[in-house]
Amino acid sequence: MIMEGTRPFTVEIQALVVSSPLPIPRRVAKGVSSNRLQLICAVLIKHLNLAIATKDVFVNVTGGMDIKDPGADLGIALAIISSTKDKPLPENSICFGELGLLGEIRKVGFESKMLKEAKSLGYTTIFSPETHKTIRSIKL
Amino acid sequence: MIMEGTRPFTVEIQALVVSSPLPIPRRVAKGVSSNRLQLICAVLIKHLNLAIATKDVFVNVTGGMDIKDPGADLGIALAIISSTKDKPLPENSICFGELGLLGEIRKVGFESKMLKEAKSLGYTTIFSPETHKTIRSIKL
Amino acid sequence: MIMEGTRPFTVEIQALVVSSPLPIPRRVAKGVSSNRLQLICAVLIKHLNLAIATKDVFVNVTGGMDIKDPGADLGIALAIISSTKDKPLPENSICFGELGLLGEIRKVGFESKMLKEAKSLGYTTIFSPETHKTIRSIKL
Amino acid sequence: MIMEGTRPFTVEIQALVVSSPLPIPRRVAKGVSSNRLQLICAVLIKHLNLAIATKDVFVNVTGGMDIKDPGADLGIALAIISSTKDKPLPENSICFGELGLLGEIRKVGFESKMLKEAKSLGYTTIFSPETHKTIRSIKL
Amino acid sequence: MIMEGTRPFTVEIQALVVSSPLPIPRRVAKGVSSNRLQLICAVLIKHLNLAIATKDVFVNVTGGMDIKDPGADLGIALAIISSTKDKPLPENSICFGELGLLGEIRKVGFESKMLKEAKSLGYTTIFSPETHKTIRSIKL
Amino acid sequence: MIMEGTRPFTVEIQALVVSSPLPIPRRVAKGVSSNRLQLICAVLIKHLNLAIATKDVFVNVTGGMDIKDPGADLGIALAIISSTKDKPLPENSICFGELGLLGEIRKVGFESKMLKEAKSLGYTTIFSPETHKTIRSIKL
Repeated sequence: MIMEGTRPFTVEIQALVVSSPLPIPRRVAKGVSSNRLQLICAVLIKHLNLAIATKDVFVNVTGGMDIKDPGADLGIALAIISSTKDKPLPENSICFGELGLLGEIRKVGFESKMLKEAKSLGYTTIFSPETHKTIRSIKL
Repeated sequence: MIMEGTRPFTVEIQALVVSSPLPIPRRVAKGVSSNRLQLICAVLIKHLNLAIATKDVFVNVTGGMDIKDPGADLGIALAIISSTKDKPLPENSICFGELGLLGEIRKVGFESKMLKEAKSLGYTTIFSPETHKTIRSIKL
Repeated sequence: MIMEGTRPFTVEIQALVVSSPLPIPRRVAKGVSSNRLQLICAVLIKHLNLAIATKDVFVNVTGGMDIKDPGADLGIALAIISSTKDKPLPENSICFGELGLLGEIRKVGFESKMLKEAKSLGYTTIFSPETHKTIRSIKL
Repeated sequence: MIMEGTRPFTVEIQALVVSSPLPIPRRVAKGVSSNRLQLICAVLIKHLNLAIATKDVFVNVTGGMDIKDPGADLGIALAIISSTKDKPLPENSICFGELGLLGEIRKVGFESKMLKEAKSLGYTTIFSPETHKTIRSIKL
Repeated sequence: MIMEGTRPFTVEIQALVVSSPLPIPRRVAKGVSSNRLQLICAVLIKHLNLAIATKDVFVNVTGGMDIKDPGADLGIALAIISSTKDKPLPENSICFGELGLLGEIRKVGFESKMLKEAKSLGYTTIFSPETHKTIRSIKL
Repeated sequence: MIMEGTRPFTVEIQALVVSSPLPIPRRVAKGVSSNRLQLICAVLIKHLNLAIATKDVFVNVTGGMDIKDPGADLGIALAIISSTKDKPLPENSICFGELGLLGEIRKVGFESKMLKEAKSLGYTTIFSPETHKTIRSIKL
């Protein structure tokens, strides 16, 4: 869930993590900047020990959207974790939050607006700076 | 078939898949972004086991058009599959649909408009989110 | 011969094909996009077995023009073939046509206008989608 | 702390330094230009002997901001030092200052305005061109 | 000598050719596009057998100008030849002309205007499409 | 010292030259284009025999400025020489002048204006096209 201006907006972010044949594995994203993807991967390797250092990581924002809002970091991170561990996220779940380089989940603007919107849309599991302080504390 | 604004529009997408002499095989597209082509190739390798990891993949949108609409994903994917397997697509066929990283074929906007237009243009085989839920379910 | 808007326009396209000292041979073009040149080279290798996979290919549009019109594909292809085989094109020849990844020469807009203009300019050999259906059918 | 026009503004800059598997280690920044990050890393290697030559260095400006103000150099440098040595910066600390290639901390515009703002915001440790003349004189 | 719109304009183009320590030698230009420099180098290697294939080639347009006019090709080429052979161009010389991939020196617009201007400026040796048909015919 | 339009302007340019661990050493500049830095390095290697071919060269324009004026070439060159030889420039010195590929120091516009401004600012050593004809003639 991201903010478009002052309006909450739901997007689906997907990741695909596969073993890489390349010495420098790919980090390819559509709808998210490549630098941002590299930072998120570095955080996941450092703070979760996630085994993606030698894997290709692909990220897709469905619907052809481009996302600048840092609040989508957590969604990108969870998608990568989910694909790496081959465990789906809980059904009916949604998330928002910026991911810091220390692995902390940072507050974003308009949180109460987002929480309200998420509940009104029927989401039952919400990952947010409210519910989790660090990426490490999220158990998938 | 893509949407130009709110108008359905027919384009022809071609692919050429050849063995690559390079350690990092080429993914070259004209009319489609390189990142998008890389994501689609990754999906085809992962979900169809398509043997393109060591092949050069070239994609061309004929007529010199640039395509942003995610609904052209399926057309790109089918063109690559067809060239890799050296099997032509069914005659008189057309397709639209976004391709997700899980291999699912995703709904796009204006589907009924597109279906109507496709039929009125005389296409008899239509690949779409209506007819196929996943790329795996399409047999060429 | 290309279309500038709705006006036919004559350009000269040159190619230079030389053995490459590099592991990834050069494809350098001035006036034509690099992606487009790579696609055309791939077609010539695949459908004509043209020996350019390990050669540097340079393409130049004389006069400092930039060409977007896909109808110049055939001119680029013939220039590359001519330089590779070291055989000049027929005197007084001109060409237009889009080159598909299947090696087919595709129709372009305003063909009759172009043909008329070409004849009025005194060209006696015209390569076009009218005269040749595939790049393979052109004998140099 | 940076200047946005003539207004002081507080940003948080983070760094993550990890061993690199690559022959050319990564310098990836979000919110700061890559060239600038490379210069700062070079200064830290040269003047502090900081062991980052074979490490990947990631820098993040939180909140999705882009920083052009050279006064943020010191913040970037301290974040990198802190992550490399695994020592947090003092609590309640803030900094500003341009970093020269000789390792000197250079004055920036509006210093008194920034100092005043920093104190009014309750920061107790301030690293600035006032307090430190060189990066070498800052002990973490 | 180039045309700025319809006005002849004198620029000085310099080249520096030195042995290269790199597997892919440098072609670096300021004021001229890199693609253009690569094409000109390819022509000089092919048609003059000039020994620059393993050399770094640097080209500079003095005064900080950017040149698009294809008529400057000949000046770039002569500067490279002169530096490679370590022979200065004749004193009081000036040149203009487009360089084709076949090594031919091509006519440019406004030639008589340029010739007139060159003479009125006191240049005594003029290399142009009038005086030389091919790059091979110019003896330095 | 550079010209901003028709106004002389003083900037400080710094360089840092360090041994490089890389096969292709870095040339990284902030505030100056990378191509320009490469040309200047090539001139210093060729005409001064300066030992930077296997060194990383970093250049910084302090204050976050971007410099297009070719008159800053000499300042960039002297900063690199000074860092390579580890000899500071004379105190109270300033410079301007374009650097040609032959190692010559070229005149720039508004020289008398610049000289006047430099003296009025109290600079006692001035390197300029007036005082030195070539980079070789400057002894540090």
